[in-house]
Amino acid sequence: MNDALVLRADDGPIARLTLNNPSKLNALSDAMLAALHAALDQVAGDETIRVVILNGAGKVFCAGHDLKEMQAARKAEDGGRAAWLDLFERCSAVMARIQSLPQPVIAQAHGIATAAGCQLVATCDLAVAEEGTKFGVNGVNIGLFCSTPMVALSRNIHRKQVFEMLTTGEFIDAERAQEVGLINRVSTGDLAKDTMALAKTIAGKLGSAVRIGKQAFYEQAQMSVAEAYAYTGEVMAVNMALEDTDEGIKAFLEKRKPDWS
Amino acid sequence: MNDALVLRADDGPIARLTLNNPSKLNALSDAMLAALHAALDQVAGDETIRVVILNGAGKVFCAGHDLKEMQAARKAEDGGRAAWLDLFERCSAVMARIQSLPQPVIAQAHGIATAAGCQLVATCDLAVAEEGTKFGVNGVNIGLFCSTPMVALSRNIHRKQVFEMLTTGEFIDAERAQEVGLINRVSTGDLAKDTMALAKTIAGKLGSAVRIGKQAFYEQAQMSVAEAYAYTGEVMAVNMALEDTDEGIKAFLEKRKPDWS
Amino acid sequence: MNDALVLRADDGPIARLTLNNPSKLNALSDAMLAALHAALDQVAGDETIRVVILNGAGKVFCAGHDLKEMQAARKAEDGGRAAWLDLFERCSAVMARIQSLPQPVIAQAHGIATAAGCQLVATCDLAVAEEGTKFGVNGVNIGLFCSTPMVALSRNIHRKQVFEMLTTGEFIDAERAQEVGLINRVSTGDLAKDTMALAKTIAGKLGSAVRIGKQAFYEQAQMSVAEAYAYTGEVMAVNMALEDTDEGIKAFLEKRKPDWS
Repeated sequence: MNDALVLRADDGPIARLTLNNPSKLNALSDAMLAALHAALDQVAGDETIRVVILNGAGKVFCAGHDLKEMQAARKAEDGGRAAWLDLFERCSAVMARIQSLPQPVIAQAHGIATAAGCQLVATCDLAVAEEGTKFGVNGVNIGLFCSTPMVALSRNIHRKQVFEMLTTGEFIDAERAQEVGLINRVSTGDLAKDTMALAKTIAGKLGSAVRIGKQAFYEQAQMSVAEAYAYTGEVMAVNMALEDTDEGIKAFLEKRKPDWS
Repeated sequence: MNDALVLRADDGPIARLTLNNPSKLNALSDAMLAALHAALDQVAGDETIRVVILNGAGKVFCAGHDLKEMQAARKAEDGGRAAWLDLFERCSAVMARIQSLPQPVIAQAHGIATAAGCQLVATCDLAVAEEGTKFGVNGVNIGLFCSTPMVALSRNIHRKQVFEMLTTGEFIDAERAQEVGLINRVSTGDLAKDTMALAKTIAGKLGSAVRIGKQAFYEQAQMSVAEAYAYTGEVMAVNMALEDTDEGIKAFLEKRKPDWS
Repeated sequence: MNDALVLRADDGPIARLTLNNPSKLNALSDAMLAALHAALDQVAGDETIRVVILNGAGKVFCAGHDLKEMQAARKAEDGGRAAWLDLFERCSAVMARIQSLPQPVIAQAHGIATAAGCQLVATCDLAVAEEGTKFGVNGVNIGLFCSTPMVALSRNIHRKQVFEMLTTGEFIDAERAQEVGLINRVSTGDLAKDTMALAKTIAGKLGSAVRIGKQAFYEQAQMSVAEAYAYTGEVMAVNMALEDTDEGIKAFLEKRKPDWS
């Protein structure tokens, strides 16, 4: 199982998924994308899991697509076009799966997160990074503009800052990544411990409420304000109707801890 | 009148609306929402008012919905569903009224602004907060994800920062709230005085131009860039046609103060 | 040629366009808008140009519209309405031309950038400003709310910060402009040199990839996430099919510099 491209290790209600191809800098190869998608699907169906942490084995978090695989596609009759379209479709499906996952996903980034690796960080609901981690969308350096990663980045941080990263190919460090909104926290000590602390905080909440809220978060983001309020009003009513929410509010009013068993 | 749930006190062109139920931490109960909506409607029709300040009496700005009222609705035949849907509709209508108000509304926050109270701050056009004020959308702590507040928050601050607040239930302080874009200014001295100074600055402008601009601000925010330019070009032409704008520009070109009487 | 309203000076693949009416603070008069639009069209068709720098001659970058011209229109039968609508349409077309230009455009701002001048900075893909540069949308001070500039500003920086600038008419300095996301870098030394350094970094990339990417940047920004991924997946496949991209990736895998001639 240590040979699997994506490892899963659970710590109670927290599942850690580890991109596990360190010799290839955890590149998002065809096999890695398939393994990650499958691991996400598995976690999605596991009601004991409340939070997911996504990290990378070895020296870096993720260095983006597998360029050798992408080059190999050039030998096809169409010069590679169909293979590349398929690749980006599968990659975008993984990104969509992260946001459609019932559980919050925290990127635990270290070393380097570039191109589609930086997109992964931007796509996760939350992100913690080790001091010194470098983030970039530097495909432009090799003549391949990071057009799919920019979809995720430009929905996380301000426009001029994304444009600069995309066209200069320059890295930003973890501190700057936090300033611009790409990550939530910079760990100056033990990265895994700090990420786990955030995961445990969220895992301590009512899982069904978090699931309802995460789904609504991305849905309402694409609506007009009026539509978003109509929709989230309905979501709140569904949330209120949960027995555990009744207990949560009762406990609060009675100044005791909720009995969520 | 000191018993009213929303107090109004005018200082020339500035109306101060005060949420006035300190023993309930100015909770947005059915009665409070009705009183606030009515007060906003009254101000909207008062052409002498150019700026509105919204604050809270007692120790905190606003602690969100009235949980006891929400719990009481469970006794209904439908378990509360109709009452909750109605509540969120009325609450969203108050939020919409703030943004449709002809006058800019400044939240003057102190103590705590949580859940729908934090939503109020996010919804106001501007916000000033006392050093030490705590902001949170911590419904998740009691099993009720702040889905309606997130509509306002996610249109004010970056995605990852909103998601963290929503799922951890943790407070951010006024300094951090300013950094992430939730509020405009932190007052380290006299909060009421600092808020009033901002209000007076805006009240000193041409009221009709500010009204035109505020309406356009929220309209254009939901349009494509091309639509937004077509629309705001029209808005600028309407603004130019005002006699007072003619006087304002003349005065500027003649290096004198405009005679806006 | 030194009398031209917009000067063009090329430094290899970098075209510098200079607003050249310093006695009028480079106001966006009818003639200036026409000259700028024509200069942008000329650059767009010049395949040797990879980056454009936009700056202003004299003491300031740009002080917005030409108020005297706008006032003169009041003498028309319709009081000016048709002329103003036409003006804002032409101005918006210049802004759209900057973003539809195949090459990235860097605003090099100094002194003052107000009203439509601030809109220009917000509209350029990137911006560098001299320490001490002042940015404002202060039409409200003369009774003319900056409704068209807010279209550009509100797509660059957070909502409350834009609203404050629009309604108080107050300036923010370059440091604050960088904090809020309006500009990329503050130059504390030689502004022209620092801007040129950024331009050269980008000009050193594969021009065709940057063109593809810039176009996709603004297109995808107005799509839903699902649409944006479908669209940018296609864009990436087109980019991959470029011979120069093949060479760029080969060179990277072979640890040598790409031969982009």
